[in-house]
Amino acid sequence: MKLLITGGAGFLGARLARTLLARGQLNGRKVNTLVLADLFPPPADLMADARVQARTGALLDQCAALGTEGFDGVFHLASAVSAECELDFELGLRSNLDTTRALLDALRAHRGTTVPRFVFASSVAVFGSDPALPLPAVVQDDTLPTPQSSYGVHKFICEQLVADYTRKGFIDGRTARLMTVSVRPGRPNGAASGFLSGIIREPLAGLDAVCPVAPETRIALASPARTIEGLIAVFEASREDFGGRTALNLPALTVSVQQMLDALAAVAGPEAVARVRFEPDAGVARMVGGWPARFESARRERLGLRPDTDFKSIVLQYVQDNPAAVTIPLRV
Amino acid sequence: MKLLITGGAGFLGARLARTLLARGQLNGRKVNTLVLADLFPPPADLMADARVQARTGALLDQCAALGTEGFDGVFHLASAVSAECELDFELGLRSNLDTTRALLDALRAHRGTTVPRFVFASSVAVFGSDPALPLPAVVQDDTLPTPQSSYGVHKFICEQLVADYTRKGFIDGRTARLMTVSVRPGRPNGAASGFLSGIIREPLAGLDAVCPVAPETRIALASPARTIEGLIAVFEASREDFGGRTALNLPALTVSVQQMLDALAAVAGPEAVARVRFEPDAGVARMVGGWPARFESARRERLGLRPDTDFKSIVLQYVQDNPAAVTIPLRV
Repeated sequence: MKLLITGGAGFLGARLARTLLARGQLNGRKVNTLVLADLFPPPADLMADARVQARTGALLDQCAALGTEGFDGVFHLASAVSAECELDFELGLRSNLDTTRALLDALRAHRGTTVPRFVFASSVAVFGSDPALPLPAVVQDDTLPTPQSSYGVHKFICEQLVADYTRKGFIDGRTARLMTVSVRPGRPNGAASGFLSGIIREPLAGLDAVCPVAPETRIALASPARTIEGLIAVFEASREDFGGRTALNLPALTVSVQQMLDALAAVAGPEAVARVRFEPDAGVARMVGGWPARFESARRERLGLRPDTDFKSIVLQYVQDNPAAVTIPLRV
Repeated sequence: MKLLITGGAGFLGARLARTLLARGQLNGRKVNTLVLADLFPPPADLMADARVQARTGALLDQCAALGTEGFDGVFHLASAVSAECELDFELGLRSNLDTTRALLDALRAHRGTTVPRFVFASSVAVFGSDPALPLPAVVQDDTLPTPQSSYGVHKFICEQLVADYTRKGFIDGRTARLMTVSVRPGRPNGAASGFLSGIIREPLAGLDAVCPVAPETRIALASPARTIEGLIAVFEASREDFGGRTALNLPALTVSVQQMLDALAAVAGPEAVARVRFEPDAGVARMVGGWPARFESARRERLGLRPDTDFKSIVLQYVQDNPAAVTIPLRV
């Protein structure tokens, strides 16, 4: 089968690509071609695989051509991130709304006898705390999103498009709402939630980090591995098991920032935690603090998806996956 | 003040225009200019009023120019209707999604010191019955819409845009979800719900009518007068009274088709009801039957909005408003 990953050179896209190449199959069908579309070329290890092709450039400009390629499956991960969209309203509209629409329209325009399976990566950021209509303490499958950021609004809008293009039979679309992914490797990426990786990643590299929210702030997290597992499970699910066309909240581990730092201490000692400085940022606290921390979902349980067990295991996953980025002595 | 009504030559738009002209003021400010934008020119009685101006043509082509006019308030009613959008996917995208986006972007591009108040007419059609995620028996302020028609999807998407352009301060937007409006005068308009006016209007004109759903089908209705009252109340509400940026469900009278026909019998006798022939249409029954019939809303109660008291009074409102269209003898 021929697959497309948009945002395929980014952290999650590249990890998904590596996972698919290692499996060799998806939903029982051999992966022959994996196209990675992104602003930047994919990492060298991916380009070294004969099955991988790159489509480098702005996705909006590439959609029409991608539509003609006859993909069997698409993972649509490409997105401008939350803080970027708050700073540049038009960038957000273009990158997150217009691009998804163009991709869907291109697939619709060139649809043949097979309907491509299409996984859209939405986000926990569709939820926001509207003071006039507060979120319930625990988010359920049918909780109404009231996004309080342009990023969340665009994700929620694209969920609706994916559902309608699916209803019409143009794609076989499924939306998975990703939790905040932590620990992300590399450099901060302009997401409002970026610090939730930074406060672990930077101390492990012997660097200082800033935490813009209070230690008691609770967050719904998933490790990179669990996130990729969720995307693949949503792709492979039967329509019946997936359950309707409404977005699915992927599993979340609920932790406080303090619990994250406690896990860091358990892995790397109190000196590592001492690298984290609290500097409140009202804008970030409003956005990230407005995302819900607790979820219940009969649908994701039906798919057999489970949250990470604890944050310490997530820190250890990061250490194992990124040995070169960990420069301080560990206690484990 | 200078006001714009999109869809201003349609039934609801023209009725809203007449109401505003008769009041002479909106939110305590004198109505100096009322611009009616529509595909068709406004009715002659409206054009005879010196305060009225027409902008005739496709709204999508007019948005950029409208943005420069400096409106104090906008009622955005223009829309392709539900059955049209199901038949022609691209028409629906263009008329309902692209046009609203273009109008919002034009207002944003030319925003000055005053932020225009913007009432968006959404619809009960945002709700649909997803078998995998059934609607609750009574729809609340925070019930998750799972639209099952392109029309409903586009309305729900535009709700999100209106909320975000409001959050960013580009407009002072409020969304009112209209219930099925009955009794509409004139000719059928291609809405899936059109028969809910036709089964009353046609018999009163001595004509036969077809009802495509079962008599026990329950519907959430509002009279034209109550619908206009709701739109004006939403425009005039303080932001605090309106309560957040989430769409407000306007008041609904819950009636069955049988109760509608009983009211027709009370007004015009059993001969009128005998004009109505039941011819089930699975597509219409699925769409209209999927819309919820019962609503509770603390928000609309706070705004002092009440549903019509009973359907007989709605039939009498139609008779009073459209004397020339009633050609059979009445019992009242």
